[in-house]
Amino acid sequence: MPILVVGSVALDTVETPFTKQENVLGGAASYFATAASLYDRVNLVGIVGSDFPREHLDFWRSRSVNLAGLQIHEGKTFHWHGRYHMDMNTRDTLDTQLGVFGDFHPVVPEEYTQSPLVFLANIQPELQLEVLRQMPKARLTVLDSMELWINIARPQLTEVMKQVDILLISEEEVRQYTNQASILTGVKHFFELGLKYVVVKLGSYGALLFGADGTYFSAPAYPLEEIADPTGAGDSFGGGFLGYLSTVDPEANGRYTADDLKRAVVHGNILGSFACSKFGIDGLVSITLADIAARYNELVRYSHFDPTWSATRV
Amino acid sequence: MPILVVGSVALDTVETPFTKQENVLGGAASYFATAASLYDRVNLVGIVGSDFPREHLDFWRSRSVNLAGLQIHEGKTFHWHGRYHMDMNTRDTLDTQLGVFGDFHPVVPEEYTQSPLVFLANIQPELQLEVLRQMPKARLTVLDSMELWINIARPQLTEVMKQVDILLISEEEVRQYTNQASILTGVKHFFELGLKYVVVKLGSYGALLFGADGTYFSAPAYPLEEIADPTGAGDSFGGGFLGYLSTVDPEANGRYTADDLKRAVVHGNILGSFACSKFGIDGLVSITLADIAARYNELVRYSHFDPTWSATRV
Repeated sequence: MPILVVGSVALDTVETPFTKQENVLGGAASYFATAASLYDRVNLVGIVGSDFPREHLDFWRSRSVNLAGLQIHEGKTFHWHGRYHMDMNTRDTLDTQLGVFGDFHPVVPEEYTQSPLVFLANIQPELQLEVLRQMPKARLTVLDSMELWINIARPQLTEVMKQVDILLISEEEVRQYTNQASILTGVKHFFELGLKYVVVKLGSYGALLFGADGTYFSAPAYPLEEIADPTGAGDSFGGGFLGYLSTVDPEANGRYTADDLKRAVVHGNILGSFACSKFGIDGLVSITLADIAARYNELVRYSHFDPTWSATRV
Repeated sequence: MPILVVGSVALDTVETPFTKQENVLGGAASYFATAASLYDRVNLVGIVGSDFPREHLDFWRSRSVNLAGLQIHEGKTFHWHGRYHMDMNTRDTLDTQLGVFGDFHPVVPEEYTQSPLVFLANIQPELQLEVLRQMPKARLTVLDSMELWINIARPQLTEVMKQVDILLISEEEVRQYTNQASILTGVKHFFELGLKYVVVKLGSYGALLFGADGTYFSAPAYPLEEIADPTGAGDSFGGGFLGYLSTVDPEANGRYTADDLKRAVVHGNILGSFACSKFGIDGLVSITLADIAARYNELVRYSHFDPTWSATRV
């Protein structure tokens, strides 16, 4: 079941305490598409410059990523330069060059409009709205955002939230958007906007799933001894989340069950862990569904416990 | 199966952003004993001054806490004064008055020496060693510590670690003691000292159980909308952990299984959540095993997911 994604495609310079690489494939849509294409066909909407290496396009085509919606304009590809601190949890953005991304307006090709699943990766909320207007038949819409848009485009971001089904958001962003210290109190604000589910990403602590229907689920993180590069972990989470849902038949009314969404969050954590384990997108390139299944089974073992304890045994 | 605990018994002044209370019952052994006594008999070793209110002794007696090892000396009870920041995760110690605790040496009454389970709550490592020497027949010994002893009594703390079975430690303390950014790498140091299990407490993110045998378990936190007072959450975790184990029959060789320990960690999180939900020990006073069982069942629902997903379904 094809998944449409709109977001940035970039050439990044990434510095960690251990290494530095220039002009590596980056951008939210790149990580999402690479992760989600392990499960199903991905329809990519984005823009790159004339400097974008052909090898990346060939790689995506080999993974059934449809590039009909990837505009190639004369000029430079979006470039991000970031440096991670020793703890690998915090980073500084040293430079951002918009290049051709500065004038980008997403155009959804006719052949994409049947995609039942839509992922609005982290770009300007106005552009996310442009995509939603071109996808009136989408069955499930998922929004990812970041701190920047909460700060400089809050009204537009709020409008997108009102129009989508599921929000992926970090713990810090929940606090920032809702002004609530308690995540459990904060997420209620999103349900007032009409969202059906909110997934709160906790980084190395896993993720929480909240449903407007009262669903609550705490998904364990996949334990990693070393983090090679956290770039794109959240976008890869999105790729695992929607990639998994693309393999599920929804109920007759087109809805996914809470159990479907729980599994999707686990897949999100798994794809996020693969993304972090190598530099750039490398952690997502050589894996297969069997590798994902192996980590899924590990997470079952790592997080399930005897469900039958009761006070009567004392 | 009785549990021996040694640790501080205090009269605290606690300030949160919302309230301030003076001379409330506090101290690591107090929280532990109050939590663990919900499950089984607790043998308390500690010291208080002549100012210690008789009502607290009566309360503990009503909960089958044996006070034969609680010394009552002329003078002042240990006093701690702390203030929590707005986020409730960090706090400042404004004052500490050792009082009679300054000359404390634990004396284990003869009737306690048959306790198979021993909890060394957060006190000077030298005093923890004094208790271990008096408990040669203990079946399971559990150590809790804190930042202070890592800083000022590291060799003595290391000696205690070498002599016990299980270590309870916070994430920050693992980093501080091992100088490793990665928790997974850090805990290996403890196994080299001979520990059988290490429980890493993650606060509002739950807890991780590591076994020298390769056991790994991620226990979900019980979700709380509001934190009234985090004081004693770690000690209450210990009380739930050992309290639960006191109800379990070990294997013929006296060992507990990894499944026993997983359930124990879940109980630890539950008792920690009850401790945080009200001021001081109040959250532990009025609950019953049925309340604990209810949260246990909730946590099963909140954290278990379909174990059967495999790549063949795609």
